[in-house]
Amino acid sequence: MNADLQLIAIRGIPEIRPGDDLGWMIARAAESSITPLKSGDVVVVAQKIVSKAEGRLINLEAVKASEFAQEIAAKQGRDPRLLEVILNETANIVRMDGHVMITETKHGFICANAGVDRSNVSGKDWVSLLPVAPDDSALLLKTRLAELLNLNVAVIITDTFGRAWREGLTNVAIGVAGLHPLQDLRGQTDDHGKELSATIFAVADELAAATGLLMKKTARLPVVVVRGYKFERGEGSAKELIRAKERDLFR
Amino acid sequence: MNADLQLIAIRGIPEIRPGDDLGWMIARAAESSITPLKSGDVVVVAQKIVSKAEGRLINLEAVKASEFAQEIAAKQGRDPRLLEVILNETANIVRMDGHVMITETKHGFICANAGVDRSNVSGKDWVSLLPVAPDDSALLLKTRLAELLNLNVAVIITDTFGRAWREGLTNVAIGVAGLHPLQDLRGQTDDHGKELSATIFAVADELAAATGLLMKKTARLPVVVVRGYKFERGEGSAKELIRAKERDLFR
Repeated sequence: MNADLQLIAIRGIPEIRPGDDLGWMIARAAESSITPLKSGDVVVVAQKIVSKAEGRLINLEAVKASEFAQEIAAKQGRDPRLLEVILNETANIVRMDGHVMITETKHGFICANAGVDRSNVSGKDWVSLLPVAPDDSALLLKTRLAELLNLNVAVIITDTFGRAWREGLTNVAIGVAGLHPLQDLRGQTDDHGKELSATIFAVADELAAATGLLMKKTARLPVVVVRGYKFERGEGSAKELIRAKERDLFR
Repeated sequence: MNADLQLIAIRGIPEIRPGDDLGWMIARAAESSITPLKSGDVVVVAQKIVSKAEGRLINLEAVKASEFAQEIAAKQGRDPRLLEVILNETANIVRMDGHVMITETKHGFICANAGVDRSNVSGKDWVSLLPVAPDDSALLLKTRLAELLNLNVAVIITDTFGRAWREGLTNVAIGVAGLHPLQDLRGQTDDHGKELSATIFAVADELAAATGLLMKKTARLPVVVVRGYKFERGEGSAKELIRAKERDLFR
């Protein structure tokens, strides 16, 4: 049995700095590896390096916490300046207790702390924010890889989010270019001729989750290629993965 | 670049019937394929064939709907007998509207319709239920594969669940044997020497999601092997993936 899907971490991506040409760096690292990128690959990129390249970094030393941020910080035992940054990235607070703040980001994603994160950013007081427009970031990378390597790949930007009801983080898609993030099998029939009902699959999230197995936070493997996945090509947007508030029973 | 992870769908699994020795059928299908199973593989099995082998099938013709089931069925425009079966599998109704019922199953999983499903079951009025004890189902398969093939694999039983906040179903782990479903990196440091904080990863769910890319509902690929994933061996239980009610802000 030959592999139906292969997951390949691209080695040799250097530390990314604001202004870096991330597409070029990924292309170069991929070209130096034994098996270069191919058309039809799905290139999955960790949010952190995209945010770094786009300069989405903030030094908490430069942040003045509002009264509201100070109030929450006191309740949660956290840095008020960090809460200020989180609130600036937040459209709505979905839930909050003495430990965590679950937010709707300005993009519409529901996650802890509006995606603001201290890990894997150099400098004690520096934090990273999510890209302003992760779909655009994905499209930029896709376009740059096409220019440099003459290849047609899909790109997913991914971050690790928590979930309701289940423990543990999983990698999900926050930016998409070149594939439909949802696969809709409604109207098709199963092996027994019954029509399939609840059968819209979040394939971009499944692709992201698969690569999460290789993107360890402590290792420097922020780019993973999924090879062999036959996806529906399309413009695509991670916004398709966001459930509209009026259809969501858990806000 | 050689593949870090390979996903291989096992072909040739026949239609499963109550009482079938599923471990033997998987072993036989795997042995007939070009690359047989190896120790260290993670064997991911769709819930549906486990439920079939265990006889977790119900014919709605034999079901008498309670008044409560009839009431919900009328509101949702569904079959009262189906609602009766769903309610029998339900520990708590988490949310309900005119379209869907989100339940806590007797195992503690939160999902639509308590995991009761009409698709891929032969016969118009037959539905499948989740296995009674999916961890035990996984352990039984793991043990049977060890007996038959003299191999040490991990086994995950998977189903497709919806999520809060995000559209589309993803494959998640509902039964686990031989691996720790959560990977806890707390206390470890990142590349910059900062301690990692919110870093417990639901690797069993990421493994399940990865295989979801190959387990299409319309195709007969209910068993997918993940090869190359270095997991923490352990007894393991999918119950570790369930967030305790008192720690869950979304019930």
